Amino acid sequence: MIEIRDSELDRFKGMRREFLGYLNLNPIQRGGILTLEAREALNEWADGYSICDFCDGVLECIKNPPIDEFVHEILPKFIEADDVKLTNGARESKFMVMHAICKAGSTVIVDSNAHYTSYIAAERNRLDVIEVSNSGYPEFRINEEEYAERIEEVKKKTKELPSLAILTYPDGNYGNLPDAKKVAKICSEYDVPLLINAAYAIGRMPISLNDIKADFIVGSGHKSMASSGPIGILGVRKDWRDAIFEKSKRFKNKEIEMLGCGPRGLPVITLMASFPSVYKRVKNWDKEVKNARFFIKEIENIDGIKQLGVKPTLHDLNFLETNVFYEISKSHKRGRFFLYKEFKRRGIIGIKPGLTRNFKISTYGFKKDELKRIIDAFKDISMLK
Amino acid sequence: MIEIRDSELDRFKGMRREFLGYLNLNPIQRGGILTLEAREALNEWADGYSICDFCDGVLECIKNPPIDEFVHEILPKFIEADDVKLTNGARESKFMVMHAICKAGSTVIVDSNAHYTSYIAAERNRLDVIEVSNSGYPEFRINEEEYAERIEEVKKKTKELPSLAILTYPDGNYGNLPDAKKVAKICSEYDVPLLINAAYAIGRMPISLNDIKADFIVGSGHKSMASSGPIGILGVRKDWRDAIFEKSKRFKNKEIEMLGCGPRGLPVITLMASFPSVYKRVKNWDKEVKNARFFIKEIENIDGIKQLGVKPTLHDLNFLETNVFYEISKSHKRGRFFLYKEFKRRGIIGIKPGLTRNFKISTYGFKKDELKRIIDAFKDISMLK
Repeated sequence: MIEIRDSELDRFKGMRREFLGYLNLNPIQRGGILTLEAREALNEWADGYSICDFCDGVLECIKNPPIDEFVHEILPKFIEADDVKLTNGARESKFMVMHAICKAGSTVIVDSNAHYTSYIAAERNRLDVIEVSNSGYPEFRINEEEYAERIEEVKKKTKELPSLAILTYPDGNYGNLPDAKKVAKICSEYDVPLLINAAYAIGRMPISLNDIKADFIVGSGHKSMASSGPIGILGVRKDWRDAIFEKSKRFKNKEIEMLGCGPRGLPVITLMASFPSVYKRVKNWDKEVKNARFFIKEIENIDGIKQLGVKPTLHDLNFLETNVFYEISKSHKRGRFFLYKEFKRRGIIGIKPGLTRNFKISTYGFKKDELKRIIDAFKDISMLK
Repeated sequence: MIEIRDSELDRFKGMRREFLGYLNLNPIQRGGILTLEAREALNEWADGYSICDFCDGVLECIKNPPIDEFVHEILPKFIEADDVKLTNGARESKFMVMHAICKAGSTVIVDSNAHYTSYIAAERNRLDVIEVSNSGYPEFRINEEEYAERIEEVKKKTKELPSLAILTYPDGNYGNLPDAKKVAKICSEYDVPLLINAAYAIGRMPISLNDIKADFIVGSGHKSMASSGPIGILGVRKDWRDAIFEKSKRFKNKEIEMLGCGPRGLPVITLMASFPSVYKRVKNWDKEVKNARFFIKEIENIDGIKQLGVKPTLHDLNFLETNVFYEISKSHKRGRFFLYKEFKRRGIIGIKPGLTRNFKISTYGFKKDELKRIIDAFKDISMLK
């Protein structure tokens, strides 16, 4: 152990979350804000392995706290999947599926709006990736029919089917919701398993794996289920049980792809404690879409601001093109950092410092008066020109 | 979404951690109890992706909170490793190393006291496992020299070297601390990389990767570093940088084995907030060993109780053979569950319900008067015969 000075250690004392209480537009932050119920559970369950006091060898079978019931009864109803697993996050869920069912060197089809972790999960599994294109500016709409073309292309080139297809629903840039059923129908006709990346859907909007008729669905607790990170879920169609839930030869009750047990600790508790509220908020999804549309209508009244992606928006996450801010930045004394500073002055954060030309935002969970404050800020700042 | 009844949702309201405040002998619980400093940070940092407010693309480079400094300066000093990574746990660290450097079908050598996740991480990577034996009852001492024999055996059988060797330091059953330097010397002579599983060492006792001269070391935040789970660390010798930290071809700042970013959320904050205390407690390791020896000496005064493993113990985690309790269970009206109930009645938990003949316990972090209470309970219960 190399000596560490007190002054170095002091850095980790009393760390504050700067700007807590600000309105945070960052889409990764909106759906993960804890409910009061989860917050109340923190102190009681924060110790290391707290949830494992009454474990009999498998985390998902723990009866107290009621993880068993949550994982095996409640979550399968919530996303209409035959089985659900707790994982360390949506990316870990994707990696797990690929690791279990895709042969190294095989090809995975992804939509070109996919999250970067879909590519990296494939790369980590030594898989090739081929993309279904989007329509480009301004809608960036995924062409669902193209899944068939890409499957044919892979067949021709590699003499085998793609080992997996992925559809991002919605994507994390434009909040576009492609026709997942159409993609599922195409994939199923070719017998190519389909994974729905629903990290921005599960916990925000109603979604059903059975209804889509896909094979896998992944969600994120910290992104969209009002949970402390890191935690994710994986929904599986029963045909894939054997492949994904294979047990260790030596340790008969331990699953190989789970490395025995998934997320050990507080995140599971926050996921469960928030769940009753999350279940209810999902039923009010219409209100969130209405709020997003209201917000966009209002800020599109500003000359030089425009929502990109499919219109009218179907999601709280939206991509804005803000030429008006870009123009201001050219002559502003703070240059391209002016926008971040101006929003911050108004109690609003979540747009990356330095961005002015375009950025994504989410209106998820804001109250009407908060939305108005944000709209006013957009209007005010646009007048700085 | 299938309708979920209110009565079902009510199960997740106001979940209590039963027996919070009891003295918990379970070794997985002792080192993960949060410090007051970590507890104070909970409310502020519990939201989903809280730590990512000021992220520029790589979690370990976040300056506010000071993750960058913690991962790149403080932790490398703490465990004397050239590089440190945050992971989702010790098991995930082991999987990561194997995934990055071991070819499928190659062989990994493990000590026969290894944690089950060492085997499963190998199984998930489709690796064969070969074991270095222990001396059996009562010491279960790992024979360090045998690493050479096993390497020779693998060479002979597979025409190649083992792709990795693992040493568990200490193991999670007996708390034995084998001679890690000796094993490292053998492995290095054969050019076989060595991973030290220090999940019960890092955060409890001083340990140095450079001093041992191994290649990798893994630790667990929730097991031994006073952190909320799931979080682990991986220490790496610089020769392995390229292999373990390989960047994505497409996303130049994202590491493949990390799937971009590691533990996203509160566990990182608790690890950092607890660190100043953890650093200090490690310096007082002698006191913990002394307490463990005091405890064992006292309960070994009871006829029919005996510590197994190497003696005198070198660690807070110890395995007890308790024939006295087994004998009582034979005629007790509660049978083998009597022991759990009797301890519980005395405010003590952590021995699995149903065990009477032998079990492991940890004395880590108990104050002298708490130790005495536990010793008295052992004495009392042994008199039930």
